[in-house]
Amino acid sequence: MAAIPVPALLITNLPDVRYLSGFTGSNAALAITRRAARLFTDGRYTTQAAEEVKAAGLGVKVEIASGPASVAAIQWLAAQLGEQAAADKTTILQVGFDATHTTVAEVDRWREALPSKLRRKLLTPTASLVEPLRHLKDEDELAVMRQAAALGDELFSHILTIIQPGIPETAIAAELEYQARMRGAEGMSFETIVASGVRSALPHGRATQTPLPRRGFLTMDFGVILNGYCSDMTRTVYLGKPSIAERNVYEAVLAAQESAVAAVRAGVTCGEVDEAARSILRDVQLADWFTHSTGHGVGIEIHEGPRIAANQAEKLAPGMVITIEPGVYFPGDFGIRIEDMVAVTRTGGEVLTHSPKALIEL
Amino acid sequence: MAAIPVPALLITNLPDVRYLSGFTGSNAALAITRRAARLFTDGRYTTQAAEEVKAAGLGVKVEIASGPASVAAIQWLAAQLGEQAAADKTTILQVGFDATHTTVAEVDRWREALPSKLRRKLLTPTASLVEPLRHLKDEDELAVMRQAAALGDELFSHILTIIQPGIPETAIAAELEYQARMRGAEGMSFETIVASGVRSALPHGRATQTPLPRRGFLTMDFGVILNGYCSDMTRTVYLGKPSIAERNVYEAVLAAQESAVAAVRAGVTCGEVDEAARSILRDVQLADWFTHSTGHGVGIEIHEGPRIAANQAEKLAPGMVITIEPGVYFPGDFGIRIEDMVAVTRTGGEVLTHSPKALIEL
Repeated sequence: MAAIPVPALLITNLPDVRYLSGFTGSNAALAITRRAARLFTDGRYTTQAAEEVKAAGLGVKVEIASGPASVAAIQWLAAQLGEQAAADKTTILQVGFDATHTTVAEVDRWREALPSKLRRKLLTPTASLVEPLRHLKDEDELAVMRQAAALGDELFSHILTIIQPGIPETAIAAELEYQARMRGAEGMSFETIVASGVRSALPHGRATQTPLPRRGFLTMDFGVILNGYCSDMTRTVYLGKPSIAERNVYEAVLAAQESAVAAVRAGVTCGEVDEAARSILRDVQLADWFTHSTGHGVGIEIHEGPRIAANQAEKLAPGMVITIEPGVYFPGDFGIRIEDMVAVTRTGGEVLTHSPKALIEL
Repeated sequence: MAAIPVPALLITNLPDVRYLSGFTGSNAALAITRRAARLFTDGRYTTQAAEEVKAAGLGVKVEIASGPASVAAIQWLAAQLGEQAAADKTTILQVGFDATHTTVAEVDRWREALPSKLRRKLLTPTASLVEPLRHLKDEDELAVMRQAAALGDELFSHILTIIQPGIPETAIAAELEYQARMRGAEGMSFETIVASGVRSALPHGRATQTPLPRRGFLTMDFGVILNGYCSDMTRTVYLGKPSIAERNVYEAVLAAQESAVAAVRAGVTCGEVDEAARSILRDVQLADWFTHSTGHGVGIEIHEGPRIAANQAEKLAPGMVITIEPGVYFPGDFGIRIEDMVAVTRTGGEVLTHSPKALIEL
């Protein structure tokens, strides 16, 4: 709390709650003052909350609320600050909440639950104060993320033995997801993308019943959740023999991806990393078909900061884990994307994804 | 739009966008006036958005925004209303947005993107205006939801052949999820719950590596997404031979569940349905261990309105699809939950889940 500009915080964004308390349930509010922290949840989670919060060992107390958890939390915070103010005239009656994760209706509900004299002034919108802390992974978190990325590699290696013309894209997704589960994943970190043939031109082509073609690209973009942390990787392979033109585009995307990976280093801006990929594609007149940003932070959530996009001034810092995933898409024809996870270090980047990137023909 | 109290709406809640436009992508804002509707998304979705919006046939135009979709949408709405106001003095410059799904920070961002004279007055918080429309399923939607529920039944029937002592809970989850995919599901509608032995006392016990016991309850709560609609069902089975006490508790939960199912009918309040289950458990001194509400609406999202909970005055209406899922949980000992999906009709309820509910011993 020392670095936080308000005397108390109400945290309701669940990944933030998990990060600070260890609790993984679907209903929670975490109330923090400079003296104490209390987690509010409901009766479904009595046992789980006690166990998880104890295992995290951060000294958070659990309270089972009969009504909405966040309302109980704001009332507790108001009472705590009221007591402190009575004892110490310098206490400011303010509770920060994350304006980027709190709805207009929630704030109204919290206000209505407060004594009328606190209703106008207690609640103070702030930026997301916890999410930026999550961007910087410590050694324990990096160890888990290496494992998550390694499981992704295992799944890719396995799926190469399954791919063949005629089987539906959904069978590829099903097999990836089944093997992820059997190898210890809690689930997938996002809806598995399996896009074959002309569908590879859809950057977010979720698996459909479409049968894999005899000849064409196949893009697989998938990730697991392992011990609470997400992995994310993409490989594009070829069924049959690619044309020279197809191979050339693949090589350009790969060169762009490797250029951006090589640009990763603490102190470099996110825009510079994006530009490292984009400029390679610009040189070969492909930049117009690279229609998204180069990557994003990843951790407890599949999409965290920083954004690796054009002109982003934010600087990379040691401990950030980001994706590098340029792609080129020709609508109605084909598309290619290649993605690794990279941990930022002082001197460069540790690539967490180890699957081969040279074009695989199946 | 005729029934809506504002001349224009900005819709950013993705299930609502999907319901109104057919678009299923992960980034979208839908702008609606009394004259036109326009969907804003980004370059990743150029092809997909055109296809899906055309297939839905609701006359929505697609625009690919270079910046944030919702900012482009509010600017378009401001321009549209400005034009209308110039032609027709009675036009009110107001755009409604859903206060329950819009963050404080988003509203600030929209305001900043508006001309200064519109900044204060254009945006008007409203209740969720689209979600209540989604509660009432039409015949096409009911047909899809029957299929989703039937797929759940198929999976339950299949999983009974897999269950045996010693295999981990995650293997049960993996098999359910694999079979769901192979039988056409887009994915699961929520994280699969597989809670065995003492873990069955956790109402939301996600599958862990815990091996199934030789003797004890096993609760499986799972659902699929099929053609965009969610299913949801729970069955609790027994490995080995239950004690008389265990069987008695099971019979009580089943009686409570059947009592609530029998109470479903258009015009009945949600509180009355909840009470139909709760009173049965109260009669046998088990109500203190029924620590959650009886059910919830289900559709494009796994949790929609109405809430089937104590004292809820909202009345059931034909076309609503709800879950009925009472449970009893003894922490540190065992738990039992039984859940069906039920479609509300004028004269009763159509139970969509057909799996047997008499206690299965494996």
